[in-house]
Amino acid sequence: MRYYPDPGKAIDLSRLNRVIEESFAEHARGRVQMPPKMYVTLPRGDFRTMPAYIPSLGIAGVKIVNVHPENPSRGIPSVMAITIILDVDTGAPRAVLNATELTDMRTGAAGAVAAAHLSPSRSVSLGLVGSGKQAKSQVQAIEKELDVREVLVWSRSEKNANTLCTQLSHLECRTSSLPKVCDCDVLVTATPSREPLVRDEWIREGTHINAIGADAPGKEELDPAILMRARVFVDDPVQAAHSGEVNVPISSGLYSMDMIAGTLGQVVIGEKKRMSRDEITVFDATGLAIQDLAIASVALKDQDGIELAFP
Amino acid sequence: MRYYPDPGKAIDLSRLNRVIEESFAEHARGRVQMPPKMYVTLPRGDFRTMPAYIPSLGIAGVKIVNVHPENPSRGIPSVMAITIILDVDTGAPRAVLNATELTDMRTGAAGAVAAAHLSPSRSVSLGLVGSGKQAKSQVQAIEKELDVREVLVWSRSEKNANTLCTQLSHLECRTSSLPKVCDCDVLVTATPSREPLVRDEWIREGTHINAIGADAPGKEELDPAILMRARVFVDDPVQAAHSGEVNVPISSGLYSMDMIAGTLGQVVIGEKKRMSRDEITVFDATGLAIQDLAIASVALKDQDGIELAFP
Repeated sequence: MRYYPDPGKAIDLSRLNRVIEESFAEHARGRVQMPPKMYVTLPRGDFRTMPAYIPSLGIAGVKIVNVHPENPSRGIPSVMAITIILDVDTGAPRAVLNATELTDMRTGAAGAVAAAHLSPSRSVSLGLVGSGKQAKSQVQAIEKELDVREVLVWSRSEKNANTLCTQLSHLECRTSSLPKVCDCDVLVTATPSREPLVRDEWIREGTHINAIGADAPGKEELDPAILMRARVFVDDPVQAAHSGEVNVPISSGLYSMDMIAGTLGQVVIGEKKRMSRDEITVFDATGLAIQDLAIASVALKDQDGIELAFP
Repeated sequence: MRYYPDPGKAIDLSRLNRVIEESFAEHARGRVQMPPKMYVTLPRGDFRTMPAYIPSLGIAGVKIVNVHPENPSRGIPSVMAITIILDVDTGAPRAVLNATELTDMRTGAAGAVAAAHLSPSRSVSLGLVGSGKQAKSQVQAIEKELDVREVLVWSRSEKNANTLCTQLSHLECRTSSLPKVCDCDVLVTATPSREPLVRDEWIREGTHINAIGADAPGKEELDPAILMRARVFVDDPVQAAHSGEVNVPISSGLYSMDMIAGTLGQVVIGEKKRMSRDEITVFDATGLAIQDLAIASVALKDQDGIELAFP
């Protein structure tokens, strides 16, 4: 068994996008095993346990990830993750990966796969609502798939928005007002919001939206009216209804599961698609265990870990 | 984060029995969180993911354990386990434990807790059906609770039965025929059998049975007639119906969940008990995630692990 303290450092993002895409395709083909994500509540947060097996990638294991919103005030990240990989043949534990950075990267890669398939054009203006680590991961993954002409960033903190633009200095990046950021080809929302930030009237025809922030019951970033006039794809219907962007409108009766157009996996294998250049498309991401295994498979191929005696 | 390659080596078995007992009591009081054990099927076996949180012990985490029956022919254990412990306050990964031996030990401890509460007497003859690692763990844990006057062992392999007796040389131990082994005060069945080995007519009034072997659908060790005339306690009713000793008789309609007398936790807190010296009692063990956390809490208190950089 080996431990990988920094498994994200050598990952090629283009290759990662392809392996993540493959995992979604296998999901759509019904060729993966992935029991529902399980939540355990702790006094100041929760942790989620995510087992899966992807036969085509020859990888099986479990990601364990916490969400503790108060941690940053104590100098600790709010989200930390660890992934255990088992040998598919014998069931023996093979690897323990620090999966905190991998979680950001695999979420970015899913957004890139969605944008690659659903963007209205190959050359795009990219809007970012939120300027945290995930906003950055989305840009880094999406620019491997699309020609990003410009990036517009809005954040509650103008300072954080400026910092992100500095980090993306290889791109044409600037901060702007929320309505102007939303006037783009590909919009990424990546905030912890519990009320809609993006108004329906700010979204023009043809926009593709990666709705990333909502990942727990009660969270939402988009005016439900956007969902009503958009073609909405999810990573997994059950998880999306429980904790994705659609969870609040479904709970309130404004939206229903039968309005979901399909899964990202179905888009990847060509079963579902954007139907016209003018329609709005939404990818509602909650995060799947198969993404965690897919990125682990990439990380493990490129690196040697630290040997741990087992038994 | 620390790695513990051999966390069972310093555990005091009497203390372990008390902490395992406490975890069952908390389970009965409804004060633990434990989502259902999740199964993922691999080509030659499966793995199970077991998250939990025990507030009273201040411990949260996940055990991951495989079952690969063909492994021993390749020189690899059929069951290997790893436990991840998270900081209850922050959700940060705190410890990775090699949990293969711990799994045997915590199963033995549960059997000892059951025997301590349900045995017809303090001084007992102990029968063992099966002579593997779990049979030994049961004896080692039970002898901390009861005065074990003699141990009788039956195994398909006479050689293995003799080896176990040699290992238990501090006790009066000998091998015997299956019917004679079953004529005892406390009987432990710990085989991978898929058909009843223990006949109803071999079990005398007053016997307590720890039915340990059945831990997956299709497995059973006892003639269902024994269950019909016994007071049957389980670790968890849902898990027992799915994969415990009662799973086959429930599937075939011979037995039903409403015939289960209660849980071991209810016995520990005094809500349920053996009603007379003459009745037969059965403890049907499937193995709970809270046991894995309980033993981890004991192991972590007594040992220093190997520091792993995280992140």
